[in-house]
Amino acid sequence: METLKYLLPEDRIPEAWYNIVPDLPRAPAPVLHPGTRQPVTPDDLLPLFPMGLIAQEASAEPWIEIPGEVREVYRQWRPSPLYRARRWEKALDTPAHIYYKYEGVSPAGSHKPNTAVPQAWYNKQEGTKRLATETGAGQWGSSLAMACAFFGLECKVFMVRVSYDQKPYRRALMEAYGAAVSPSPSTETESGRGILAAHPESTGSLGIAISEAVEVAAKDPETRYSLGSVLNHVLLHQTVVGLEALEQMEMAGEYPDVIVGCTGGGSNFSGLSFPFIGRKLQGKGNPRVVAVEPAACPSLTKGRFAYDFGDTAHLTPLVKMYTLGSTFVPPGFHAGGLRYHGMAPLVSHLLDLGLIEAIAVQQLDSFAAGVEFARAEGILPAPEANHAVAGVLREALRAKEEGVGRTILFNLCGHGHFDMQAYIDYNAGKLKNYEYPAEEIALALAGLPAGVT
Amino acid sequence: METLKYLLPEDRIPEAWYNIVPDLPRAPAPVLHPGTRQPVTPDDLLPLFPMGLIAQEASAEPWIEIPGEVREVYRQWRPSPLYRARRWEKALDTPAHIYYKYEGVSPAGSHKPNTAVPQAWYNKQEGTKRLATETGAGQWGSSLAMACAFFGLECKVFMVRVSYDQKPYRRALMEAYGAAVSPSPSTETESGRGILAAHPESTGSLGIAISEAVEVAAKDPETRYSLGSVLNHVLLHQTVVGLEALEQMEMAGEYPDVIVGCTGGGSNFSGLSFPFIGRKLQGKGNPRVVAVEPAACPSLTKGRFAYDFGDTAHLTPLVKMYTLGSTFVPPGFHAGGLRYHGMAPLVSHLLDLGLIEAIAVQQLDSFAAGVEFARAEGILPAPEANHAVAGVLREALRAKEEGVGRTILFNLCGHGHFDMQAYIDYNAGKLKNYEYPAEEIALALAGLPAGVT
Repeated sequence: METLKYLLPEDRIPEAWYNIVPDLPRAPAPVLHPGTRQPVTPDDLLPLFPMGLIAQEASAEPWIEIPGEVREVYRQWRPSPLYRARRWEKALDTPAHIYYKYEGVSPAGSHKPNTAVPQAWYNKQEGTKRLATETGAGQWGSSLAMACAFFGLECKVFMVRVSYDQKPYRRALMEAYGAAVSPSPSTETESGRGILAAHPESTGSLGIAISEAVEVAAKDPETRYSLGSVLNHVLLHQTVVGLEALEQMEMAGEYPDVIVGCTGGGSNFSGLSFPFIGRKLQGKGNPRVVAVEPAACPSLTKGRFAYDFGDTAHLTPLVKMYTLGSTFVPPGFHAGGLRYHGMAPLVSHLLDLGLIEAIAVQQLDSFAAGVEFARAEGILPAPEANHAVAGVLREALRAKEEGVGRTILFNLCGHGHFDMQAYIDYNAGKLKNYEYPAEEIALALAGLPAGVT
Repeated sequence: METLKYLLPEDRIPEAWYNIVPDLPRAPAPVLHPGTRQPVTPDDLLPLFPMGLIAQEASAEPWIEIPGEVREVYRQWRPSPLYRARRWEKALDTPAHIYYKYEGVSPAGSHKPNTAVPQAWYNKQEGTKRLATETGAGQWGSSLAMACAFFGLECKVFMVRVSYDQKPYRRALMEAYGAAVSPSPSTETESGRGILAAHPESTGSLGIAISEAVEVAAKDPETRYSLGSVLNHVLLHQTVVGLEALEQMEMAGEYPDVIVGCTGGGSNFSGLSFPFIGRKLQGKGNPRVVAVEPAACPSLTKGRFAYDFGDTAHLTPLVKMYTLGSTFVPPGFHAGGLRYHGMAPLVSHLLDLGLIEAIAVQQLDSFAAGVEFARAEGILPAPEANHAVAGVLREALRAKEEGVGRTILFNLCGHGHFDMQAYIDYNAGKLKNYEYPAEEIALALAGLPAGVT
């Protein structure tokens, strides 16, 4: 029989997360305090994050030990399987070998619990009673809600209004886990009230929801803030994905020529690729690494590499990243997890260093690829993951055209069970592609903070 | 670290299904031709099923080899994990050890692909072009749709109207896999038109949908029929669940004192329990085996053990089973997969032999148990599986009351990702318990076929 699945035993869950920063040829730009424009200190961040996570955010250590209790929870779904997509390869008639790491096996259905669990754990250790966060499509909110339930923390989620209204099922999952969920912009925060005063019909954005959650955390000493992507410590936690994949590719007896992941804030892409890029920096292997983003929110392919705020109300520190401008509200395409104006500073830095590539794909192409994948492999990807699938499809068809065998590895970061309305709309011909929103982006970029480069 | 998860390597996927029939102290009653009232012959069944499955239906062999191509597809999610529910045990403060076999890891999210895949495969071998089937909540329909996509068969699904309207997400999954889905009763069949003429507002039932699918298969030589539960060969295919669990309990160093499964048609319950009951019949181990059914559709606890039709329009053979009468339409509770008037003949026979027990639980108790389980274990069960969880909860609390350690094993047959409307309604206080529908059942039982016992 041909091998479909590469499984690691439980004791091969990584014992440490991999921090790519010390391996980089040039250090990333520092995070700046929004008032002083000076590098932030740990004390600046303490109202928002526990010291355990702040230390990781700035760490120069290449390996950071995973706490035992976190590994114990990880063991419920980790090591996640690595699949060879043999049926899809056959359907495509491609000489490429396609492998995917499948993170939909977590109870919340995506890679997000990889960081939700340690974030909840470190907060619990330092006495946090409640975590506040934002969520777009709901993958992150449901993952944090679950992690909070495991460790006995309260959880408050600001859910982007358009998703809150259109995706009641993700909200129901968060509520089943015991979280309190509000649509954002809400009347519960100054940030939310400000947005609603200016735009009473606002459908929200991740940038706005972040402002609300940060504000709640900053004002209540028992509440801290939790972010599902973008930050260094979040990307760090996701490296369990790539560390496992390294071993699993070894089991398969192959090494990737191309690594593909979708990018919204950057966490699933980084989780898979950083361990491979780290090896590349050490002279081991030389895969191309391709980030796939939505054409309607193209921070990496059309954004500017500049200091910007992580949120719309400008409550966060300034980070240097590829950004479309913090006031840019992406159009309402279905991959809600990719509707973010910026990109993780580390991912941005890697693009700037030429260590990764980026492409943008249109919504209809992403769904067409996802449906073909589902019919071959059984797993229906989340709309976010469809972008990665579409990127892989391009690579696989190019390999076929060129008649060249090629090993492609991608991160299937979540299933689409909670996103079926998107598939209903796609099937009914109601989804569309989006023009590049050039004017809105130009306007938002004109508002970038001045005087910092 | 405490062990949470027991995984078997890929080469421990069972090589044969276990057929309990030859181990039984008394043979089950024969299936009768609805016209002649004589035992059916293989030729009688050939318009509906391929010979490979008909042979299994009547087999006296204890072990039936699983075809290589079926095992190859199984390997995508099998062996499925066995979990120890340590966090739930702790939350319940029970001395019981609770184990669950988790079948939600299949791409369709339930145990149903265990039989959908071999059914599609045997049909493909014998030249079937299309499969027709029924589905309630959609677990079965989506599983068969996926299996048909894998083997290049067309798939036609009659979906119980109430679910078709209320659960568009399962329908969307079937359509993503390429199936054609119609609400049942439909105008596409004589059975459907007959029902609609008498009851224009009919919300449908599994019994009606079965009639429609059987009719379509009987009339088209290129179409065969496929059933997701009840029949011997379906229960047979599910025994991979219990065979794996036997090995995994051995890894855990325990043997179940109690085995629990929910029952609608009986397939997930049988899949887990038959291998253990087989051992019991051979003098190995003596677990209690508890079937948990919904109080609103209580075939095992309130039905009659009698010959009845499997469908409403009386197109199927007569089978001896616990039944509420083939014209009984269960009330619209959310566990659509349990809304069947009858029970698998083999499960019925085992109850008659005293080899299993049965209890009924109310809808609100089942959801309360499911939500508590989700907060502890992360996995949100399907409404059907909540019945098993509620049954386990009783056993675990009884163990606590009695101060007795006890090993409980149950089948968590699917996740609830496609059933979130049920959780929304539960959370909003909109779900209710159901009175035992005594009059409707009495009426339906009065219509049982006469002259056969």
